[in-house]
Amino acid sequence: MKKAVVMLSGGLDSATVSAIAREQGYAVYALSFDYGQRHRSELDAAARVAEVGGAAEHRVIKLDLTGWGGSALTDNKIDVPIAGLTGAAAGIPVTYVPARNTIFLSLALAWAETLGAVDIFAGMNAVDYSGYPDCRPEYLAAFQAMARLATKSGVEGGDITIHTPIINMSKADIVREGARLGVDYGITVSCYQADAHGLACGVCDSCRLRKDGFRAAGLVDPTRYA
Amino acid sequence: MKKAVVMLSGGLDSATVSAIAREQGYAVYALSFDYGQRHRSELDAAARVAEVGGAAEHRVIKLDLTGWGGSALTDNKIDVPIAGLTGAAAGIPVTYVPARNTIFLSLALAWAETLGAVDIFAGMNAVDYSGYPDCRPEYLAAFQAMARLATKSGVEGGDITIHTPIINMSKADIVREGARLGVDYGITVSCYQADAHGLACGVCDSCRLRKDGFRAAGLVDPTRYA
Repeated sequence: MKKAVVMLSGGLDSATVSAIAREQGYAVYALSFDYGQRHRSELDAAARVAEVGGAAEHRVIKLDLTGWGGSALTDNKIDVPIAGLTGAAAGIPVTYVPARNTIFLSLALAWAETLGAVDIFAGMNAVDYSGYPDCRPEYLAAFQAMARLATKSGVEGGDITIHTPIINMSKADIVREGARLGVDYGITVSCYQADAHGLACGVCDSCRLRKDGFRAAGLVDPTRYA
Repeated sequence: MKKAVVMLSGGLDSATVSAIAREQGYAVYALSFDYGQRHRSELDAAARVAEVGGAAEHRVIKLDLTGWGGSALTDNKIDVPIAGLTGAAAGIPVTYVPARNTIFLSLALAWAETLGAVDIFAGMNAVDYSGYPDCRPEYLAAFQAMARLATKSGVEGGDITIHTPIINMSKADIVREGARLGVDYGITVSCYQADAHGLACGVCDSCRLRKDGFRAAGLVDPTRYA
């Protein structure tokens, strides 16, 4: 079985991506990050998703990004937006964490190389969150080009590929795809300020997008709200 | 004063780069990594270099890369080479750490963004270590292109620049430049297996290159050997 590193946050998007990687025949090596995020219960969710989803291995890398501040997701002094605009017109949201996806993808790249894998799956989405610069297709293409020059496997001809299978899907498309693949969204946590038990606030940008997705897809929303 | 993030390992190369950044008028924000390297005394050296070199701030990011193995620098089961070939002809040495420079540069990018800086200085060198894929100019150009797409500052038009002022210098050129700038190489540690006091082995690839550099430059070698 081909190996793939799958970035797994514990949220809805990455749970879907993990199921897609499995369907494509990959052994999933799930990678999560403990970076000082407010919504730490997503790490518990990631562990459940990895287990239920049949991951070959699940690793959590601890990396403290709180010291730098600059984001509502890592700085308690900045409020999580509850009625933010979304999409390109809204600009870059305060939930943007400087260079986060670049750091995470770099660590995924390192693990892939030690595993002898050239495939990395990630849940970036350009529809709902196009305000994040590091969720855009042109960014991901540039990362992939860099990765092929950065590594021993790339230099030796390995076609390192950053797979972002849901990048152009709406949230409704994503939950429909996940439902088809049997993903249990009840164990995932998307909320930016979920409590210690993983219960969602229901009002932050991430909760609203998720809720709207289930509604638009005509599916029951299994999210556990506080 | 313009701010720059300077990647500071505690070795000869990065100490020189830090002095170059200062001469170019930058306030130096020095960044080091505690990644489970054998030669941990280089971190003490980095702190000394930052202090003596007048850095505005020095941060050490802890990030455990030992779990993945795959390199003589992080895996005690792999010997550090003491008579390795160097240069492109030698291929990629066992001291290569998978995706290390990509991870480090990504973290430097994140700190730069929170500081409002667009300049990153790093001590990659393509002459002595061209066997490392992530020390090559084409890799660094690809990283810079990616970084401009990855970040808020890049998207807003900031010309994020990865400065590698010593990339084409020989070790002799580097120590000559450092001597001109008043760098105290006696406080730097380059050895791959320096002891707890920072004393160098004198025989590993890194020691040999350093020793040859001072000799070729006609300068006294202030390295403290075990």
